Amino acid sequence: MEKKLIIIALGGNALLKNGQKGSINEQRLNVRETLKNIYPIIKEGHDLIITHGNGPQVGYILLKNDAGEQIYDIPQVPLDVAVADTQSEIGYLIQSELFSLLHQNKLNREIISTNTMVEVSANDPAFQNPTKRVGKTYYDTAEVEKLQNEKGWIFKEETKNGKTGWRRVVPSPKPVDIISKNTINTLARSGAIVIAVGGGGVPVTIEGDTMHGSEAVIDKDLATALLAKQINADQFIILTDVPYVYLDYGTDRQQALDYIALQDAYQYLDEGKFGEGNMAPKIQAAIDFIEAGGKEVLITDLKGIKNQKGTKILKNK
Amino acid sequence: MEKKLIIIALGGNALLKNGQKGSINEQRLNVRETLKNIYPIIKEGHDLIITHGNGPQVGYILLKNDAGEQIYDIPQVPLDVAVADTQSEIGYLIQSELFSLLHQNKLNREIISTNTMVEVSANDPAFQNPTKRVGKTYYDTAEVEKLQNEKGWIFKEETKNGKTGWRRVVPSPKPVDIISKNTINTLARSGAIVIAVGGGGVPVTIEGDTMHGSEAVIDKDLATALLAKQINADQFIILTDVPYVYLDYGTDRQQALDYIALQDAYQYLDEGKFGEGNMAPKIQAAIDFIEAGGKEVLITDLKGIKNQKGTKILKNK
Repeated sequence: MEKKLIIIALGGNALLKNGQKGSINEQRLNVRETLKNIYPIIKEGHDLIITHGNGPQVGYILLKNDAGEQIYDIPQVPLDVAVADTQSEIGYLIQSELFSLLHQNKLNREIISTNTMVEVSANDPAFQNPTKRVGKTYYDTAEVEKLQNEKGWIFKEETKNGKTGWRRVVPSPKPVDIISKNTINTLARSGAIVIAVGGGGVPVTIEGDTMHGSEAVIDKDLATALLAKQINADQFIILTDVPYVYLDYGTDRQQALDYIALQDAYQYLDEGKFGEGNMAPKIQAAIDFIEAGGKEVLITDLKGIKNQKGTKILKNK
Repeated sequence: MEKKLIIIALGGNALLKNGQKGSINEQRLNVRETLKNIYPIIKEGHDLIITHGNGPQVGYILLKNDAGEQIYDIPQVPLDVAVADTQSEIGYLIQSELFSLLHQNKLNREIISTNTMVEVSANDPAFQNPTKRVGKTYYDTAEVEKLQNEKGWIFKEETKNGKTGWRRVVPSPKPVDIISKNTINTLARSGAIVIAVGGGGVPVTIEGDTMHGSEAVIDKDLATALLAKQINADQFIILTDVPYVYLDYGTDRQQALDYIALQDAYQYLDEGKFGEGNMAPKIQAAIDFIEAGGKEVLITDLKGIKNQKGTKILKNK
């Protein structure tokens, strides 16, 4: 079998299941199960990079920030730093569970978890229109005024499950450059399993020669697609909560797809065939990768690799 | 000039000064200043690994853990995970500030911050006698009972500044193996500046083929010395809050040393000439490195490299 460089993006459910409270022990067991499910790729000896989301974890860090300030007067960390925190938090769990899995299978590969900064453009229109909801539900009006003044945070009112309140919103700009792509590439191609681009990466902007942290979040599938493009990965796998990409998901016309050609992907996306929310950005990430010369994207669920299910996005069917 | 592989361990004051509250902005400015002070080494083109402490940062994460559970019922992360959090938190600050410093000086080197796990032995006597104080001051008796039962935490009563209370204590075992030493070595020798072993590393134990997180903390100078030994570094630099190692520090017999030969280091350490607390473990780390064949240890303050001050520990004077 030909050795490939494969990048796998783990979705939120690889780390935390619906209804779980989010203890590290729960997350550790979920990671263990996920790694067993992707083990066929490791067994085949492919070069491998693992990326992951961080939604619930960064949410918890923001809430602890808020609580720590209230009770102990500890300065809050900005969002870029909170994202960084989650990279080694989750990276460590993956790294240590993968260590055990490899050793139990008599495999000897180094595992590296890297803190990845991802450049975004200060001119990205997302900065003019922050949409990503983060942090506690909900802030009261007095807090909103205080935080707007003191920290420049932006809030939007939302109504959810019959409750209305103020929620902090942050921009979700497009990733422009994976800062340590060369090292990630070299490490992965030398046989180390690399954990990188956690939570979409720590967003930074570069003005002249100076790097600044950016209080934003980057879509992890788009950031992973960018890394896959920049280092010419052979395959990009997105593991999410459904075994296939569907047209008209959740309707009576729902149709699972085995393959999507690039041309069809554009068309379905334009027509809104992937519905709102979750799947459309993954299809966009897949398009980004294939357009740049990538060979194959696979979108499936956590067991899809083991069960040989999933939707392949290719240049031509 | 001969190119060396140099490992620098940054002390707590490289990140946070006495009297500062600990905002990320304060830490960022401190890191910026520290990096300027070690810039002569970078300018000379040596291979470089930077390690760092995490005392105040991990303390804050533990307090936020406590506050987050109280206000939002968020499960606390165990100490190994809290240490991991600080690795990318501080690693990111160093990495981004170093990026700017390199670019302002037209240098093009990749900077990698890695999450480092460090093996400790489950049989280390430290596990029978935890001494390192962590977390909030102080727990009341009811909390102590609850946490002893629920989490197995151990507490000791302490009296400090006229206050008496219960403090959580954790073991500080000796580092046995830097798990990703080979990759750290390869990266550093390929010219990347590597940030590693933050906070002494995330302590893990290995039973058979299985890795477990360990709720302990590892002395960062001992862990850095171990890395320096394992990868045959040429020079090990410890930056702390004094420009020299002194005999009888703080007494009227205080004497700054330019050089210490290995033989004398043993003797002074035995005689308690370095006083309690801070310096003795650094001398022990220096001895570990020189005994294993390391050429030179330099102990000085943050400006010592720039000001060409400091105490050198060598096999022979």
